Amino acid sequence: MSNNKQVVLKHYVTGFPKESDLFLKTATVELKIPHGCNGAVLVKNLYLSCDPYLINHMKKVEGNYADSFTPGSLNSIQPIVGYGVSRVVDSSNPNFKKGDLVWGITSWEEYTLIKSPRNSIQNQETDTDVPLSYYTGILGMPGMTAYAGFYEVCSPQKGETVFISAASGAIGQLVGQFAKLMGCYVVGSAGSKDKVDLLKNKLGFDNAFNYKEEQDLNASLKRCFPDGIDIYFENVGGKMLDAVLLNMNLHGRVAVCGMISQYNLDQPEGVHNLACLIIKRIRIEGYVVNDYYHLYPKFLDIVHPLVKEGKLTYVEDVAEGLESAPGALVGLFFGRNVGKQVVVVARE
Amino acid sequence: MSNNKQVVLKHYVTGFPKESDLFLKTATVELKIPHGCNGAVLVKNLYLSCDPYLINHMKKVEGNYADSFTPGSLNSIQPIVGYGVSRVVDSSNPNFKKGDLVWGITSWEEYTLIKSPRNSIQNQETDTDVPLSYYTGILGMPGMTAYAGFYEVCSPQKGETVFISAASGAIGQLVGQFAKLMGCYVVGSAGSKDKVDLLKNKLGFDNAFNYKEEQDLNASLKRCFPDGIDIYFENVGGKMLDAVLLNMNLHGRVAVCGMISQYNLDQPEGVHNLACLIIKRIRIEGYVVNDYYHLYPKFLDIVHPLVKEGKLTYVEDVAEGLESAPGALVGLFFGRNVGKQVVVVARE
Repeated sequence: MSNNKQVVLKHYVTGFPKESDLFLKTATVELKIPHGCNGAVLVKNLYLSCDPYLINHMKKVEGNYADSFTPGSLNSIQPIVGYGVSRVVDSSNPNFKKGDLVWGITSWEEYTLIKSPRNSIQNQETDTDVPLSYYTGILGMPGMTAYAGFYEVCSPQKGETVFISAASGAIGQLVGQFAKLMGCYVVGSAGSKDKVDLLKNKLGFDNAFNYKEEQDLNASLKRCFPDGIDIYFENVGGKMLDAVLLNMNLHGRVAVCGMISQYNLDQPEGVHNLACLIIKRIRIEGYVVNDYYHLYPKFLDIVHPLVKEGKLTYVEDVAEGLESAPGALVGLFFGRNVGKQVVVVARE
Repeated sequence: MSNNKQVVLKHYVTGFPKESDLFLKTATVELKIPHGCNGAVLVKNLYLSCDPYLINHMKKVEGNYADSFTPGSLNSIQPIVGYGVSRVVDSSNPNFKKGDLVWGITSWEEYTLIKSPRNSIQNQETDTDVPLSYYTGILGMPGMTAYAGFYEVCSPQKGETVFISAASGAIGQLVGQFAKLMGCYVVGSAGSKDKVDLLKNKLGFDNAFNYKEEQDLNASLKRCFPDGIDIYFENVGGKMLDAVLLNMNLHGRVAVCGMISQYNLDQPEGVHNLACLIIKRIRIEGYVVNDYYHLYPKFLDIVHPLVKEGKLTYVEDVAEGLESAPGALVGLFFGRNVGKQVVVVARE
């Protein structure tokens, strides 16, 4: 038997999440597939992905699309669940063998028994040119989310103007780079000077601004987009969306990937400028990456070489150890992360 | 010379329009094309169409998509401009001859000289089975708007559930009937008992409610749509949109044709439930009929026979005489009209 540290939800979150909504406990685990557990995989978790969508599982809200995690206690074993990169320790599934690297849905703990791996994890190429943690980001769910949202939802054309909010985050930084590769003019907003510098100096954005320092978002957008916005990649919602609507061009498109500024408010902010949709013939479309995973092989064929050739950059914010996981996850909702937030469970 | 009564904008409208924002004056007109005015058409106006979009021309708002009408005076000749049905009195244009019936863009007066008829009016079939006024409604711009919005923007499928606000209006009543013809379940909202009766008893809607008598629009929609809404045809905006978002189904579609409840507010109402777009993968799309007129011949081939066979019904609210035009137009914004609001300038 080995020790197995776990991150467990203490109680349903109300309002903004706090580190104390989660706790760490230490269980034990046998490092082999239990008898009679056919088709299963036992993995050692290496990297965990901190993603905003997890908040939906941490709240108990009527009409929530996500099954909520069950709050645990010191006696129960229910770590929270999310994306991660893992090494197969034992397998009773013919598609996975000991030593394989996999990415997909795992639990926030050191070792996880995955009983139905077919729809939850997949083998990943073992390519030492690319950091393993990239499968929690640019080569995993966030990368696929950026790809599907930009290419499939936004219908981009060369030369168009693209605005991205939360632009230095796990998804935004990639959407911006995809847009630049396509020959678009790209501007991002973020919440600190460091993030803005990153966008302008490392990620190749044409311009960027710190929304916290702007008095009037409408004016900020007019300054950055004198000819208007063709495509808005929406990660934040609320006031920013309202200002964007005033600056959209005819036949503009808005892909709604997230609205992180709204998730933890008692009452979401009102958006007042929706009448712009009519006169400007704007399309707003919400999407979820799960609907696009059939494109993952195509995505990987395109993006993997671009990463290896250095044509796509990826900025990670790495937290060391499961002990740091609650703080890293909660930090997302306060904009503390600079780039993709990853938790290292174990380095190999 | 003949007298020519005209409806002129007195000053730009602020807030809700009032009858006193417009005035009637009597000018004079020569009933023949002026010398040297080649390619023009002189028409006698028969029916004028009262449409909500006209308010955009009556206000002076930054970012307004429409050119504002120029407020007139007793000495200037600038009647407001809109859709109408007219008889050609004289023509120097080879495509139109004296006696032709036309529909399209004309002015709110008895006689109008149309200098560039090519893109503004078109000949209409002279079919005595169909009232001429229908070319201001079911066979004209509103009909085309309903057709394009429903078939082109909403991507409807047989058996889907469809909700229509302002459902007894010029466009809503048609969208509902198109949806019924396709085999959808159709519910409409309107602002009086008479309108609700019309929807249920004359226009074939499966259900309807008076939004002014509902305490909780979310509950009203849940009652009418226990299995959710697949398609929302948006004519009103504000609180209704907010309630609809809570009741939309996965991959729902919203065609935004108008937001009449919002046009005259100092500050439009906030819409709070836009995060639903993500989790339900909803598409919201604004549109303007001008982008779809290439489909007009196809539309007419489909709709004209349905009207003649009595398979499509059309309810009009007819105001007699140009003197009644200001009141009829303003009444739209208070929901006074029951059905399509038409002004009769002259009966033949």
